[in-house]
Amino acid sequence: MTAPIRLWDKGAPLDALVHSFTVGDDPTLDLALVPHDCIASAAHARTLHKAGLLSASDLTALLSGLREIHAAALAGRFTISPEQEDGHTAIEAALTAALGDAGRRIHAGRSRNDQVAAAMRLYLRSEVLRVHERVSSLIDAILARIDADGAIPLPGYTHMQPAMPSSIGQWLAAHAEALLDELSAALDVLRRLDTCPLGTGAGFGVALPLDRGFTAALLGFSRVQRSAPDVQNRRGRFELLAARLAADCGAVVEKFAWDALLYSAPEYGFLSLPESLTTGSSIMPQKRNPDVVELLRARAARLRARPAELEWIIAKLPSSYHRDLQLTKEPVIRAVHDIGEMLTVAREVVLRFEIHPERIAAAMRPELYATDAAYERVRGGAPFREAYLDVAKSLRDGTFRPPTQSASAIRPDLVAPDQLAAMREELQALRQQAGEWAARFAKAEQAALHDPAP
Amino acid sequence: MTAPIRLWDKGAPLDALVHSFTVGDDPTLDLALVPHDCIASAAHARTLHKAGLLSASDLTALLSGLREIHAAALAGRFTISPEQEDGHTAIEAALTAALGDAGRRIHAGRSRNDQVAAAMRLYLRSEVLRVHERVSSLIDAILARIDADGAIPLPGYTHMQPAMPSSIGQWLAAHAEALLDELSAALDVLRRLDTCPLGTGAGFGVALPLDRGFTAALLGFSRVQRSAPDVQNRRGRFELLAARLAADCGAVVEKFAWDALLYSAPEYGFLSLPESLTTGSSIMPQKRNPDVVELLRARAARLRARPAELEWIIAKLPSSYHRDLQLTKEPVIRAVHDIGEMLTVAREVVLRFEIHPERIAAAMRPELYATDAAYERVRGGAPFREAYLDVAKSLRDGTFRPPTQSASAIRPDLVAPDQLAAMREELQALRQQAGEWAARFAKAEQAALHDPAP
Amino acid sequence: MTAPIRLWDKGAPLDALVHSFTVGDDPTLDLALVPHDCIASAAHARTLHKAGLLSASDLTALLSGLREIHAAALAGRFTISPEQEDGHTAIEAALTAALGDAGRRIHAGRSRNDQVAAAMRLYLRSEVLRVHERVSSLIDAILARIDADGAIPLPGYTHMQPAMPSSIGQWLAAHAEALLDELSAALDVLRRLDTCPLGTGAGFGVALPLDRGFTAALLGFSRVQRSAPDVQNRRGRFELLAARLAADCGAVVEKFAWDALLYSAPEYGFLSLPESLTTGSSIMPQKRNPDVVELLRARAARLRARPAELEWIIAKLPSSYHRDLQLTKEPVIRAVHDIGEMLTVAREVVLRFEIHPERIAAAMRPELYATDAAYERVRGGAPFREAYLDVAKSLRDGTFRPPTQSASAIRPDLVAPDQLAAMREELQALRQQAGEWAARFAKAEQAALHDPAP
Amino acid sequence: MTAPIRLWDKGAPLDALVHSFTVGDDPTLDLALVPHDCIASAAHARTLHKAGLLSASDLTALLSGLREIHAAALAGRFTISPEQEDGHTAIEAALTAALGDAGRRIHAGRSRNDQVAAAMRLYLRSEVLRVHERVSSLIDAILARIDADGAIPLPGYTHMQPAMPSSIGQWLAAHAEALLDELSAALDVLRRLDTCPLGTGAGFGVALPLDRGFTAALLGFSRVQRSAPDVQNRRGRFELLAARLAADCGAVVEKFAWDALLYSAPEYGFLSLPESLTTGSSIMPQKRNPDVVELLRARAARLRARPAELEWIIAKLPSSYHRDLQLTKEPVIRAVHDIGEMLTVAREVVLRFEIHPERIAAAMRPELYATDAAYERVRGGAPFREAYLDVAKSLRDGTFRPPTQSASAIRPDLVAPDQLAAMREELQALRQQAGEWAARFAKAEQAALHDPAP
Repeated sequence: MTAPIRLWDKGAPLDALVHSFTVGDDPTLDLALVPHDCIASAAHARTLHKAGLLSASDLTALLSGLREIHAAALAGRFTISPEQEDGHTAIEAALTAALGDAGRRIHAGRSRNDQVAAAMRLYLRSEVLRVHERVSSLIDAILARIDADGAIPLPGYTHMQPAMPSSIGQWLAAHAEALLDELSAALDVLRRLDTCPLGTGAGFGVALPLDRGFTAALLGFSRVQRSAPDVQNRRGRFELLAARLAADCGAVVEKFAWDALLYSAPEYGFLSLPESLTTGSSIMPQKRNPDVVELLRARAARLRARPAELEWIIAKLPSSYHRDLQLTKEPVIRAVHDIGEMLTVAREVVLRFEIHPERIAAAMRPELYATDAAYERVRGGAPFREAYLDVAKSLRDGTFRPPTQSASAIRPDLVAPDQLAAMREELQALRQQAGEWAARFAKAEQAALHDPAP
Repeated sequence: MTAPIRLWDKGAPLDALVHSFTVGDDPTLDLALVPHDCIASAAHARTLHKAGLLSASDLTALLSGLREIHAAALAGRFTISPEQEDGHTAIEAALTAALGDAGRRIHAGRSRNDQVAAAMRLYLRSEVLRVHERVSSLIDAILARIDADGAIPLPGYTHMQPAMPSSIGQWLAAHAEALLDELSAALDVLRRLDTCPLGTGAGFGVALPLDRGFTAALLGFSRVQRSAPDVQNRRGRFELLAARLAADCGAVVEKFAWDALLYSAPEYGFLSLPESLTTGSSIMPQKRNPDVVELLRARAARLRARPAELEWIIAKLPSSYHRDLQLTKEPVIRAVHDIGEMLTVAREVVLRFEIHPERIAAAMRPELYATDAAYERVRGGAPFREAYLDVAKSLRDGTFRPPTQSASAIRPDLVAPDQLAAMREELQALRQQAGEWAARFAKAEQAALHDPAP
Repeated sequence: MTAPIRLWDKGAPLDALVHSFTVGDDPTLDLALVPHDCIASAAHARTLHKAGLLSASDLTALLSGLREIHAAALAGRFTISPEQEDGHTAIEAALTAALGDAGRRIHAGRSRNDQVAAAMRLYLRSEVLRVHERVSSLIDAILARIDADGAIPLPGYTHMQPAMPSSIGQWLAAHAEALLDELSAALDVLRRLDTCPLGTGAGFGVALPLDRGFTAALLGFSRVQRSAPDVQNRRGRFELLAARLAADCGAVVEKFAWDALLYSAPEYGFLSLPESLTTGSSIMPQKRNPDVVELLRARAARLRARPAELEWIIAKLPSSYHRDLQLTKEPVIRAVHDIGEMLTVAREVVLRFEIHPERIAAAMRPELYATDAAYERVRGGAPFREAYLDVAKSLRDGTFRPPTQSASAIRPDLVAPDQLAAMREELQALRQQAGEWAARFAKAEQAALHDPAP
Repeated sequence: MTAPIRLWDKGAPLDALVHSFTVGDDPTLDLALVPHDCIASAAHARTLHKAGLLSASDLTALLSGLREIHAAALAGRFTISPEQEDGHTAIEAALTAALGDAGRRIHAGRSRNDQVAAAMRLYLRSEVLRVHERVSSLIDAILARIDADGAIPLPGYTHMQPAMPSSIGQWLAAHAEALLDELSAALDVLRRLDTCPLGTGAGFGVALPLDRGFTAALLGFSRVQRSAPDVQNRRGRFELLAARLAADCGAVVEKFAWDALLYSAPEYGFLSLPESLTTGSSIMPQKRNPDVVELLRARAARLRARPAELEWIIAKLPSSYHRDLQLTKEPVIRAVHDIGEMLTVAREVVLRFEIHPERIAAAMRPELYATDAAYERVRGGAPFREAYLDVAKSLRDGTFRPPTQSASAIRPDLVAPDQLAAMREELQALRQQAGEWAARFAKAEQAALHDPAP
């Protein structure tokens, strides 16, 4: 957040107030959208040319102008002034300044309404792919850690009470499985995003002979978003899908972070965090604090406010465009930024926490094996409820002995090699699917912007 | 909600208080899960038998007992007493009462933790299919209405200001498109739900030689949910997917309801609601009130609190089972019930609202055609920004004339026949996919419960 | 929640569907409002009589009829049929059935809109007082526990790392202080609720010479809610104040519950919960689970969804009455019911947890005194930052020794007697204020319903 | 929001990543807190001196240093480097750089934990007063508008259907009444904020003889926040009170904005917005769009996400300080900034909308008087239900005539002079109370920072 300027607090004149109020943070936020807008604009220009509404030389000029803005934006050299209000206007202004009339022709057949929807759609799909990539890396780290330390035992808890034997591997694998499911979810989001809004204008279509399927194909979309009002009705809802994905990934990280905080509390002492991931206290000289992991938990909590923010803004509005929709940009931009940071940091925590097997061993008390003992009786033919009562009695009267484990015993506390293999295979498959989307997008976007005018 | 009993207010003894507090509304809520629990229990019993842990005669007895409970539950004859606490206990109690030792054997190799997860998974997939069906019916109604009245004009608004020409068809088609996307989303949810949690016990696996793949196949699942802790870590998250689906469908209905309320306000007068969908006032004799449509909007608003409720309950907990998870049942049961009711009522509104073309015609003012006029100039070669300024000037000085429409003119305000055809085709394809899921589930569940013991 | 009837699922006729959809759960929910509606109706009848719009004999008859309904409702004998739709109609119907024309006169000068607002206002103020009482009882229990065990040491944690010496008393007193602040908040809510909506009709006033100040005084309100549209505009907002109060009290209970769960985990072992507050496992014979405390945490989480539900329903609506507002009743009724149960159960936990001083003693490691050691140096004249570095060094090189405690030493880890006295005094003062409100309400309501007609 | 730096995306080294992740936006956000921290630090220094822990010359030096930082911060000249992490560290660093050992003595007897709580408490009370002032100004504007145009009629709607006669004054007065209630709420928040957290250290008190009552009095607080752990337990909850206040004020503005949008839609045409408060379209030359009012609605919606964000961060944590609490600053800083802007803009809308009495007159149809007609019969002795049915019949058969209005008739549709007078009186009283708080704070803060050392 930029420091509040508080025009309203200083008796600024009305037009400055109104301008600042309506522009909001767009000049900053839109920087994230500018490169995508350039690509969408290039596709739009090509479509205008195909429809005979833009000459070959104007197209060539516009493409070259858009490439320059694209490069400047990626390099952090493109700026949007408060007077320009938003990135879309800034691009058109830059084109017109550079090219004259050609610049004044680019907005034919579109409105800021479908322009921003298109730029946002491209932005979202690229960010969802980035989240996919980061989640995949985090799973890699978890699987590597299971390879290294998976067989180290760990008490399994329910109700925060020791319940049954478990292992470092079984604990970590659960988080990896949850993340694999989020990779699937990310692909579902990509499928939902895969329609092109360009050519729907302000929300009621455009009375020009634009080939919308051509535009969609140029941008690597599978199909057009057919209904023009639908494009505006659903502003914010695609953002919501991405923000929920971020929050859901955050929820997995949060649970891991809570576990790490508990297990590294001195009372548990199963794990500890290296100095690089802890900080000191301003008043207590003896302390090393797990701030990084606490902030993973806190960021996950905060992330949940982003989809809520989006829903508040878009809910309970009649059909079509309302200016309210302007506010849908910030929450999703922040959400995908935050989850990227969190996944990267979480990966470091997964790779670097230290395990203290001796503290764990002391915690693997005999009672953890009570259920196994009941099952031993079940394997011998006893009805489960009888076996259960029997073991309970032996625990109460102090005669309980954990069953001795034969080599052939079933060990549900360990991650079975075939589970690990299946996870790796699934990760591989999901990564490949994401890779195919990424390749399709990259190829189309490269061509839309950089291919010479036909 | 049942009327509050308020034991706490009447000085009840501690054990009654604690019992009532921990049991909560489970005896009522679990009625929705009992039929699904019977089916899952039948599959579990077959798996125990396959593992040699249950005799053929015990299996036969259990299956017969489960069939009886299943039938009683469907007929509304099965009850859960507060002493039994929940449906899982009530089923086991009924089996044990009827069958003795065989009943005491059914809980071997499972815990209430995986039992409830399995029953809920079956419940959710059946409810998601039901939502799919209701959404499909609502789309049918919209498409039928477009067939009948789609070409009737309607002003298109942005910022609630008349903007461009539109039509009844274009307005309605946007909602149908949004609903088609929710049908896709529902199928995504089904895919996410498609793993079997049985055999993971309390959250750390089961030391018995149970063939989890066999159980999964019996219940029509594509695969097992591999990780045992993951099953408990994600309690509430599958419910969240279904609750979000309900809320998202609700959001489409909400937007349509808002439109209907506006357009049937006397100031617009484009539509009216038939007497069967309006009610009277307790104080104003002249009024007919659109309560039904207002309640569609309000129910959609309320629906958004259900995923939030779920997230509050499951968020910020360390791994594994906590009793907190008990509270995840109610919000999703209410969410799917509410959206079912809403979709049914919305369908009636779509089919029955009356259109007042004469009121609409009066609202189709010339200014709606200003953009078309600008595009006419663009087709003639003018840069868009010039055309735009030109038309703006003609509007200001009163010389504006709407362009005359030739037969060959592009009419983006109408739903093109190929859009309608594409929507019907997409609906058909989505319905068929849902049908395949439904058939798979029905066949498996029928066999799991009713096939004779091997 | 009553079991879903699912008319919509069974092809019920339209009018049954619409009726069920619009009536919702009102016949059950309104039972909580009926006694309050009777009292408000009695005051309204007296006001009609004062205005010359109701004869003395009609008033006498109505008062007697309302007393009967009031008594029946309190005894659980009054029912609302689905045909009557809501409690307000049921009361009028019962009066008309019993009294004929007199019953038909009671609705003059009011609308269901101000009638329900008045009944809800009376309900809310009585429930807020009940919450006040339960919170006070919980504070009593905490203070009693501090008296008994406050001096027992406890490690003080920050970042879940041992930080400084603390005590059972200091830990518990923090929760009592937070609850004292909620008692203040409850009184603030009472002040906000203290305006009478009767006499504002459907939202634009009533063209009858009703003395609104008289009605307000009869019901024990300090003043009228002046603006008629404001009464409808703020439907749901008074409910929101009460629901937030419930959620805020829940948040205090939640933090205490989390602490109790941690401290009673075997790794901490500072506390344990008695058998009466724990339950067994369906699969693990050795376990006692802290379900009651987990459910305190979960209920607190769930409570936060109630204000959110209210806000979703009332947000983003234009002025005046909309049928949406009907849905504002349930969330607040559930919220105040739930917090009542939680406060009662939390009190039992506070009174009954057992303390294990030997486990605590083992956890009071020397490093907890590092800050004290730094302060000792500060008292000797060292700049704090130097003292801090000095102690940090002694900890690193193993030469650290906790400062010996003289009898005169400052002991911030203990609850000072004057803090305890101040808390008791504050509690006493807040209780007295609540008592004055309660007495005012009781006296007015008793007179409004039971005084003979003038 | 500053443009995302995305260290995590560029393979930055671990310590840079961790630093950036833990520091977050604090260097920007804390600028809002620095002036308040200086004042609290001055009071803390005076308390250290009183305790004999700081010499008179060190105190004099520290006060002078703090005055300089305070002035620099107000002038926008104080900066916080990312290395310094937060404002508290930056202040201490600046003092130490300027004063040497004296700077190193300021942190004795406090922790960043109580330091930030104190700075935030001062910030919040000053911002709550600012909100109070802006709300008061908005009420002024509404009352002025009622004076000017209050008697102009307006249809009164329920269910968005014309219901009864109303007026511009009655419509506006409802919003003013709601805002008056928020002024009360703001004073309640000030009372809740009125305790001093300084002297509680990291959360378990300070073993130095600090006179906490002296510090509290220096800062203009009525009392100390007694319990040290309570200070950390309730981090975020004071912020929540302020954020809810902002959201609640926003909700009033939202309802007014919705009304203004509806009434200025051409179908209603009752109002219009001046050019200074509307903007043009990028594609439709004829349009003037009410963006300002739409953004008031959207900002109000967004504001509701701030308390939710706060609650997510602070919920479900055990007692005492966790690093999670760092994230509580941003949502409340944004909330109070946003509501300030909104209230200022809303005031302009209230003062500047134009009224079109002729359009309103056309909408004042006879049926609006149906309830009045029924009441006329009631005044003549008819039971209300009979009168109601009678009027309903006359409306159906076309014989209905509005009652003629005598000069003496009751006119609930107008704002009565005594209502207006009562509102002005209430506003005056509330303003005076706020003024007394403001004066108390200003005097204390001025003295704490600027009085010479004793």
